Amino acid sequence: MHTLKTLQGLFLEALSQTHFSGQPASLYEPVNYIMRLGGKRIRPVLALIACDLFGEDPHKALPAAMAVEIFHNFSLVHDDIMDDAPLRRGQPTVHEKYSANTAILSGDVMLVQAYQALEVVKDLQQKSDLFRVFSQVAVEVCEGQQMDMDFEKRETVAIQEYVKMIELKTAALLAGSLQMGAILAGASPKEIHTLGQVGRNIGIAFQLQDDYLDTFGDPAFFGKKVGGDIVQNKKTYLFLKAMEIADDLQRRELRTCYFEYQGTEEDKIDKVKGIFESLGIKSSSKTLMESYKNDATTLLESLSNTRKEVLMELIEQLMVREI
Amino acid sequence: MHTLKTLQGLFLEALSQTHFSGQPASLYEPVNYIMRLGGKRIRPVLALIACDLFGEDPHKALPAAMAVEIFHNFSLVHDDIMDDAPLRRGQPTVHEKYSANTAILSGDVMLVQAYQALEVVKDLQQKSDLFRVFSQVAVEVCEGQQMDMDFEKRETVAIQEYVKMIELKTAALLAGSLQMGAILAGASPKEIHTLGQVGRNIGIAFQLQDDYLDTFGDPAFFGKKVGGDIVQNKKTYLFLKAMEIADDLQRRELRTCYFEYQGTEEDKIDKVKGIFESLGIKSSSKTLMESYKNDATTLLESLSNTRKEVLMELIEQLMVREI
Repeated sequence: MHTLKTLQGLFLEALSQTHFSGQPASLYEPVNYIMRLGGKRIRPVLALIACDLFGEDPHKALPAAMAVEIFHNFSLVHDDIMDDAPLRRGQPTVHEKYSANTAILSGDVMLVQAYQALEVVKDLQQKSDLFRVFSQVAVEVCEGQQMDMDFEKRETVAIQEYVKMIELKTAALLAGSLQMGAILAGASPKEIHTLGQVGRNIGIAFQLQDDYLDTFGDPAFFGKKVGGDIVQNKKTYLFLKAMEIADDLQRRELRTCYFEYQGTEEDKIDKVKGIFESLGIKSSSKTLMESYKNDATTLLESLSNTRKEVLMELIEQLMVREI
Repeated sequence: MHTLKTLQGLFLEALSQTHFSGQPASLYEPVNYIMRLGGKRIRPVLALIACDLFGEDPHKALPAAMAVEIFHNFSLVHDDIMDDAPLRRGQPTVHEKYSANTAILSGDVMLVQAYQALEVVKDLQQKSDLFRVFSQVAVEVCEGQQMDMDFEKRETVAIQEYVKMIELKTAALLAGSLQMGAILAGASPKEIHTLGQVGRNIGIAFQLQDDYLDTFGDPAFFGKKVGGDIVQNKKTYLFLKAMEIADDLQRRELRTCYFEYQGTEEDKIDKVKGIFESLGIKSSSKTLMESYKNDATTLLESLSNTRKEVLMELIEQLMVREI
């Protein structure tokens, strides 16, 4: 029986033995840079967990684990260009360290390398299934990123649209990681589908929690500056829900405060948090994320296999943070 | 027996029936835009020709044809961002018409769609082979583009390096198109390899011709402004060969004339062309491209199948232009 820790170790060991270098060095050095920059490696671990869940040696899922981790990093490289982000994991982003052109092209080659990571799979039916699920997820992630960019320019976004966006941008890849691990374990189509639904629900809950913590998290635990989303006028779940349930007066106040605030960042954060709290957004946010988390665990329990502890543990780890 | 014309028609018909639209529209509209912008459709036709060459119904190669055409257009979208190109086929480039961010993301989704075009292939071994060849080619195209960008910043580039660059950036995809068509026709690994080598040689000859015509082409036939590479200080085969065979005095003159010319564009073009002609570059260029073309036809003749006329015809069409 594997623990979360041994599965993480298994992936990190495989990653350390993987070479991303090649010629021309100017193309591959950025790939190596971003792949070695750390991160929680949640997606590859999900692939290994899914394989273990169905009683198979998690080593079997390493090709899928590598594919989803390379893909995730590819999406970070391109998203960081689009968001003009200077830092990633506390270090310069690829386009800052090298150039935007290099970040575009190194990202492109990473997307191809993600597919290539699946080539070692011997079972041709599994390989075909992996390519199909992987491409589907990759398309969804692009759609989610485009929706996110579109939302920035829009006046209003419905909660339902927002949840769809985070499902595509974040949850689809978590789901795909689990599905790909399950495919390599030889799970049935129904089991693969159910596990995918588990992943979708975990992913949505996880992103909702991220929104919550960005505003209400304890800075000592959260790791990044609290209030960043408010400062950047981001249309998060908290903001959209507040706009939905506010009366006309409150809505005007929140909109002015969010988009036209003249004072300091600290004052803006305090003021917006005050409005959120007066509208009960803290609790509606917690209720919604609990509901997705519960759907995830209920679906997981519906599977007949018995080795669910590791995934349960990961869900708790992902969700428990100091709420 | 299919003719070049019927094969072109076959692909255009399939393309007209393919939908690239989807949600969000902001992601897919640029895909539809670039895919409908025209172009010679050489790569997909090569895939169909290869299938026909081995006696199979060229319809079988349509998934490969679509994959290579989508990939080619993906590479144009991203290359045009990197080159800051305003026009493509006489129309605004995707990043000009929409935005750089949209061009990055729509390009990304196209790369995935290229893989998805191969999903309809039923034979699992063929599908696996197609994915492998396609990924290999995709990586090479990225490497070639990076080498091309690196060369811009370098003082000197050896002819050998230049030929390697155009092999990766241009010839690899032409070769891959032929190989993928041959895979779908059930050709043997040896036949697939040989046809790939035919494609590499055609591709290098074709790019050398492009360099030649950019400087020495007849404007009435060439279609674009003659001398563009000289105006843009491009390190083409003509320039690199001239630098290689020039004596010290001529080399200094050419370098000054190429990189530091103070007069009009027309004068610069005339002056550089004069230097090229005095060094016999016209003839060394023709000799080299003929040698690659001859290697292509010799390799093609070595194949035992008899239906080679269409590929021969395409080679002649690609190469004959008014040299």
